[in-house]
Amino acid sequence: MEETQCQDPIAELIVTYKELNGSTIEELYEEPSPLEFMRYVAKNTPFVVRGAASNWKATKTWSAKYLEEYLRGETVNVAVTPVGNADAPTPQGPDGSLVFAKPWEEDQQFGEFLNYVVQQEQGDSQKQQNTEVRYAQTQNDNLRHEYASLFNHVQQDIPFARIALQRDPEAINMWIGNSRSVTALHKDNYENIYVQIAGRKHFALLPPLCHPCVNEQRLKPAHYERSSSSSSGTEEEIVPPLRLELENDGETVPFAIWDPDRPAENATEYSHLAEPMRVTLEPGDMLYLPCMWYHKVSQSCSPEGICVAVNYWYDMEFGGPLYPLSNFVRSVSKMNKT
Amino acid sequence: MEETQCQDPIAELIVTYKELNGSTIEELYEEPSPLEFMRYVAKNTPFVVRGAASNWKATKTWSAKYLEEYLRGETVNVAVTPVGNADAPTPQGPDGSLVFAKPWEEDQQFGEFLNYVVQQEQGDSQKQQNTEVRYAQTQNDNLRHEYASLFNHVQQDIPFARIALQRDPEAINMWIGNSRSVTALHKDNYENIYVQIAGRKHFALLPPLCHPCVNEQRLKPAHYERSSSSSSGTEEEIVPPLRLELENDGETVPFAIWDPDRPAENATEYSHLAEPMRVTLEPGDMLYLPCMWYHKVSQSCSPEGICVAVNYWYDMEFGGPLYPLSNFVRSVSKMNKT
Ligand SMILES: O=C(O)CCC(=O)C(=O)O
Ligand SMILES: O=C(O)CCC(=O)C(=O)O
Repeated sequence: MEETQCQDPIAELIVTYKELNGSTIEELYEEPSPLEFMRYVAKNTPFVVRGAASNWKATKTWSAKYLEEYLRGETVNVAVTPVGNADAPTPQGPDGSLVFAKPWEEDQQFGEFLNYVVQQEQGDSQKQQNTEVRYAQTQNDNLRHEYASLFNHVQQDIPFARIALQRDPEAINMWIGNSRSVTALHKDNYENIYVQIAGRKHFALLPPLCHPCVNEQRLKPAHYERSSSSSSGTEEEIVPPLRLELENDGETVPFAIWDPDRPAENATEYSHLAEPMRVTLEPGDMLYLPCMWYHKVSQSCSPEGICVAVNYWYDMEFGGPLYPLSNFVRSVSKMNKT
Repeated sequence: MEETQCQDPIAELIVTYKELNGSTIEELYEEPSPLEFMRYVAKNTPFVVRGAASNWKATKTWSAKYLEEYLRGETVNVAVTPVGNADAPTPQGPDGSLVFAKPWEEDQQFGEFLNYVVQQEQGDSQKQQNTEVRYAQTQNDNLRHEYASLFNHVQQDIPFARIALQRDPEAINMWIGNSRSVTALHKDNYENIYVQIAGRKHFALLPPLCHPCVNEQRLKPAHYERSSSSSSGTEEEIVPPLRLELENDGETVPFAIWDPDRPAENATEYSHLAEPMRVTLEPGDMLYLPCMWYHKVSQSCSPEGICVAVNYWYDMEFGGPLYPLSNFVRSVSKMNKT
């Protein structure tokens, strides 16, 4: 292996990684064995298993109608935002500076929530533009709590991952929304097995060492609030609007502000080197999203107007070189900036 | 996990790694399964299996006498140096600047070679100080070539490694020497399974990210030559002496000049942060030495006066983040120096 002669270690890092790894995702057609999976974990490299969950009861039965009947009378926590921007960098105030916008969370009757999601997706686009966006995305192990009655429609865990990683899932989450919700580019300290049930998800993925490309900034925290004051409105607008409240004494949140789908905006000098790995999950597909990979996730709905997924988070391994080396890339790229 | 607040990313990297990993080697008492092995590969973390090769024919039979009889009449390649410094940074010339000293290589009758090794080890220490050092250490798959007649006394490969890594060994090497030979701190792009047969080996190990501690310098290449001119001598000194020849138009060799056993010499500002993992292999012990780990190796002899080991080199995986990130640490620490 020849040494790349290159002035800038950060550019060299990103380019060498791309040369050695490419940016096309590996596609499998059956689940890996624990050993095969461990080889991907060792390489910190994603793969998708097409159709791995095609025969799960969830994939076969979770239509909008089925879910509505199954959860009738139950209350669920819903993330509400004006434009589908839960946990996303969002312009605020007169100067439009970016803050980290957390959603307004409220409990809703499941049927009411689901009808809203479906009707928004199927309604005329003008109306769609102007109405708030609702996404069930609590990420607190909700499939074993809020949605526990549905839990036996999916696998209790992912055997190849449990055996390889020697641990049970830390959280199993349900995600229900429509095409208005987008999850902004971010990373998690988990090994993630993500399973599409209905509709499609579109992932843009970048390895941890692309930190210098994503333009991490410390953003002021903010959250949406429903302004209960303006509860009177026309029939068209009975829902009180959302206001973005700055949390003035909250700690700033380090967050990527570069968006792989608007590469010219908020770019760093390294963003143009990033070549996101893109993959669309169809119902029944299973994605291995390795720990610390950046991911941006958008969605398309089933003909019925919903998008449903479940995912399994396994605690990552902090031993070994990956975690400290990823932090090192971050520290070096921060030093460069200051 | 809290972020360490630290000014210097390199120091932070080394300290964080130590905090998360410690510097004690894991000891197993039976060979791992391929999956268990793959977990160590994924963590790029060494382990030793005590007694894994106790029942190999080699471990049971390879005494000095046995080897001498078995290989009688065969010729082997021997690395010859004045003080056991094959492939080692060595002071040269009037200013004592370090060069990369390669051994003089010559073919010797196996019996003659082995007797020399044994007698040097068992002779009085005064004589030991003044005589050249011989080490059979060709590292060119010699156990399947030069020493092929002995190959079926060891395993043909290491099944857990072959299955996990999905490849056959690239090289299987035999090492025969005495306590005068020391292998200087260096790293290899191989996954290494190292098996002690007779005598003991003492390893000092450092992970790839300790590059900033080892003081890598570009050294001029040099090699020892036997000066055939002075072939006349007293009976005490029938062997012509060795001269160190500079290879003036050879390419410089990037090499660690810090020695974990003389930590105050040739230190960088980070050397004091390195805490070498130390392990001694007894006959029958097996070490997993992960790719790109720095290792310094010294040896003690069996009562008979020899030290014998074999090792299996498997090509490493260049995909994934470890290889580019290790190079990144190197580039950043080089930038810091210039
Ligand atoms: O499905 C989404 O909207 C986001 C998924 C995600 O970020 C995750 O699984 O970590
Ligand atoms: O045994 C020795 O002297 C050195 C071993 C070594 O460097 C290796 O196995 O890579």
